[in-house]
Amino acid sequence: MSRQPILSGLMQQNALTVDQFLSFAAQWHRDTEVVARQVGGSSERSTYGEIASRARLLSGALLANGIQPGDRVATLAMNHIRHIEAWYGIMGIGAVCHTVNPRLFDEQIIYIINHAGDRILMADATFLPLVARILPHCPTIERILVIPDGSPETAAFATTDYDQFLVSAGDTQAPWGDFDESTACGLCYTSGTTGDPKGVLYSHRSNYLHALATLQHDFLNFSAQDVILPAVPMFHANAWGIAFSAPAAGSKLALPGARLDGASLHRLIEEEGVTFAAGVPTLWQGLLQHLEKTGGTLATVKRILIGGSACPPALMRALEDDYGVEVLHAWGMTETSPVATSNAPTRSTLSLPREARNAQALKQGRPMFGLGLALKDEDGGILPHDGRTPGHLLIRGETAASGYFKGAASIVDKDGWFDTGDIATIDTHGFVQITDRAKDLIKSGGEWISSIEIENAMMSHPKIAVAAVVGMPHDRWGERPLLIVQLKMGESAEADEMLSHLQDKIAKWWMPDVVRFVDAIPLAATGKIDKKVIRATMVGAAA
Amino acid sequence: MSRQPILSGLMQQNALTVDQFLSFAAQWHRDTEVVARQVGGSSERSTYGEIASRARLLSGALLANGIQPGDRVATLAMNHIRHIEAWYGIMGIGAVCHTVNPRLFDEQIIYIINHAGDRILMADATFLPLVARILPHCPTIERILVIPDGSPETAAFATTDYDQFLVSAGDTQAPWGDFDESTACGLCYTSGTTGDPKGVLYSHRSNYLHALATLQHDFLNFSAQDVILPAVPMFHANAWGIAFSAPAAGSKLALPGARLDGASLHRLIEEEGVTFAAGVPTLWQGLLQHLEKTGGTLATVKRILIGGSACPPALMRALEDDYGVEVLHAWGMTETSPVATSNAPTRSTLSLPREARNAQALKQGRPMFGLGLALKDEDGGILPHDGRTPGHLLIRGETAASGYFKGAASIVDKDGWFDTGDIATIDTHGFVQITDRAKDLIKSGGEWISSIEIENAMMSHPKIAVAAVVGMPHDRWGERPLLIVQLKMGESAEADEMLSHLQDKIAKWWMPDVVRFVDAIPLAATGKIDKKVIRATMVGAAA
Repeated sequence: MSRQPILSGLMQQNALTVDQFLSFAAQWHRDTEVVARQVGGSSERSTYGEIASRARLLSGALLANGIQPGDRVATLAMNHIRHIEAWYGIMGIGAVCHTVNPRLFDEQIIYIINHAGDRILMADATFLPLVARILPHCPTIERILVIPDGSPETAAFATTDYDQFLVSAGDTQAPWGDFDESTACGLCYTSGTTGDPKGVLYSHRSNYLHALATLQHDFLNFSAQDVILPAVPMFHANAWGIAFSAPAAGSKLALPGARLDGASLHRLIEEEGVTFAAGVPTLWQGLLQHLEKTGGTLATVKRILIGGSACPPALMRALEDDYGVEVLHAWGMTETSPVATSNAPTRSTLSLPREARNAQALKQGRPMFGLGLALKDEDGGILPHDGRTPGHLLIRGETAASGYFKGAASIVDKDGWFDTGDIATIDTHGFVQITDRAKDLIKSGGEWISSIEIENAMMSHPKIAVAAVVGMPHDRWGERPLLIVQLKMGESAEADEMLSHLQDKIAKWWMPDVVRFVDAIPLAATGKIDKKVIRATMVGAAA
Repeated sequence: MSRQPILSGLMQQNALTVDQFLSFAAQWHRDTEVVARQVGGSSERSTYGEIASRARLLSGALLANGIQPGDRVATLAMNHIRHIEAWYGIMGIGAVCHTVNPRLFDEQIIYIINHAGDRILMADATFLPLVARILPHCPTIERILVIPDGSPETAAFATTDYDQFLVSAGDTQAPWGDFDESTACGLCYTSGTTGDPKGVLYSHRSNYLHALATLQHDFLNFSAQDVILPAVPMFHANAWGIAFSAPAAGSKLALPGARLDGASLHRLIEEEGVTFAAGVPTLWQGLLQHLEKTGGTLATVKRILIGGSACPPALMRALEDDYGVEVLHAWGMTETSPVATSNAPTRSTLSLPREARNAQALKQGRPMFGLGLALKDEDGGILPHDGRTPGHLLIRGETAASGYFKGAASIVDKDGWFDTGDIATIDTHGFVQITDRAKDLIKSGGEWISSIEIENAMMSHPKIAVAAVVGMPHDRWGERPLLIVQLKMGESAEADEMLSHLQDKIAKWWMPDVVRFVDAIPLAATGKIDKKVIRATMVGAAA
């Protein structure tokens, strides 16, 4: 934070700590509801006032049980009232809330719990079988708190009921905050497809600034009239900060719990009058299928924020044209808190012809104030924002990570830039489009070939279930593209049919040299294509 | 900032400095326009890219001329392109931009320039006669930069042309930022009606956080599609932060210069497609009068933010019902950066019956996230939020002042609260309503009488031009209200007629004991009733 000031302003200085979000809501939006679906489908209802009060009890119980500032407390939980309580109860006293993703493989969960050194694990009853499997391998865990979520699962090992633990220290309303704003508050591991998971350690300051920045019109834009449905899990990339930004704006929350199917989402939307929802594309595809089947509408919904992976054009069109919902495409990553860009139109893109505007809407968009983005070549040279030149996408700002938990090295370069690992273009309107992961690029004759673009072109073939493109070693060109195809059940095809489908869709020199048909393309725990496994098991055979 | 962290987050930490607002806009909204009206009525057009580039030249010239971090540079200027350049050019290098209000009396301007110790004064050509009068009494000023604003005024003393000064150090693009975020960046004196003006010294951090917080939906809510007309002057209470928040959001700016009459505002709105405007009530009353005369409309305008003084119900109704403009009533003061509350509806106030909703819309509203508000009695006891119990309104937060420039004492109490000097109620929806200035309250028999409520009740009498109510000493009750009336030109009336008008509008025991008719009620430089002068010159005679 550089030089000492010659002349300091005469303004109040309090630490920017996240407990203030809930405390603010508890005072000014005390009776505003937070509603959550139980596993059985019934609703639990609370208010910001009640949640703040219970979260302080939890803080008191954690302190009474020896949890110190800096200690890690893990959660294995879906989006519901007690998970929000837990976040604030843990963070408010300077401890670190480690959100564990229950969708990871057991060995990954064991790795990250041990790496984090979690002392307490709070788990939804639903996840007790999972806890039973991992617990013997997690020696740092001293206590399991079971969060009642309506599931009938029980444990054959020692547990404490979350609600009983909460009142175990009496009605002590533990004090919150009053520590340095750079104090760690949240820990979220990225489940990359290369190497071990890496822990992003959010600070109170970074989460505070992120939540404030995301409240801008062209990002989350919450108001005290809104009803927010965060369908993005709280264990996924900081839940896009919604557990902080919704109370800051005084918005009502409608939490889906574990019920993320189309019918459940639609019932929640209708019953609670949801105005805004956020989640990954597959959720909204499920919702659309349900609506098509039932003839349902989205009358109360004004806006859906789609992120996590690129939004299919058909999904965007259906939501906007058939259901009158404004779709905002956003991008970010665990390391960026996560919201970094959105494709909300500007005065300049609004004046484009319809077709160009549609193309614009599919890009990842422009950065949120507070973030710097740069497009650099391999030698660190700045590349033009011409919408054509791909480069390494670097990011800088208060809400971007500087390192990984217990990581040996800083992850920013000497100028403070973090390399996202993505390859992108930036156009003259300042809109970013991600064209590939850097490690998935194929370098042929010194030029880049985007594996994602070939995959996307291939996916419109009606016989294809999944397509993956990776580089294979080549004597003359260095690397050449290898296309791996998993056909839909019962289909059959030849290599020529696949390649001719690509004919007018990609540059001639991008055309895969080899096509290989497989029964199943390997997927990682998050559902993404696992190119690490493909490279290890399928490239040698083909080359 | 309290205790050192046990475990720090691993997030990037850069200082929160205001230069980033313009640098961000210059990169991501480079061609977005900033338009300003010249004195003659013609328009000057620029872009965020050009303004950032010129502001850095100005920084270079200031440094070359010996301006150091912490030095004060004053501006006497309306809202136009070069004033924005000047803010960033001065603040970007850690110097302090002191915005001088040209509407103050000469002796007040002389006082604050000397108190601030300004080294350079940048003045619109329009204000050269004013500068000629004050300059002999301002020994700290080394140089006058004349900003060309289309005015024909010239100086009979040594001046430098602003545009020539800007390029005087060559094309040095001075570096910005890289200092502690608590560094002072802006100085704005409050022109209270008691005592000498007091200087609020904003920090980079406070202005950065204020701008981010005001961008929320229920406050300024700017987007990259908006065209913003800040009709609140940049010398008035930090211009509500718009010189920071508009570039952060990538909004186009339409600056009115000195042309704030209804016809000029309307022309600017029509020509530039203004979507959002902000200013004091009298400006919009002028605009409405113009529209009524000409049959004009406000087709592009979505929202008008009204602050500075309470918004008359008739004005709000006309804008909303006759012109389809959403009106947002906001409140704040120089000491609070200034935005503190807005009356944007919540889910709970929206469900009120129409009449109650209208009453709600006239209140000052609920606080912006980041601010604490408290209602306390004279002994510091917390008062209920029942909408009836008046108390001292206290404020706490990152964007509130902790002291005055060169002031001996802190202006916050031991718990960090700043006393606004206002008396207010807070209702069950969390909406604040200011009922009086504390020093203008009349204390009768141990109970408070609101001078403002009596004045407002009186103002609906058709014969009255201005009414003022102050306390006069009373043996038995301590104080009793004295009503001072200035009738409209040519009108005459007796005391009884005045008092009977109040009959059903105020409590019986609030009825003024004495009515006094005067030719002119004394006004302060800001146009507000000067109760200090009234008390000094009119109370003794009446009592």
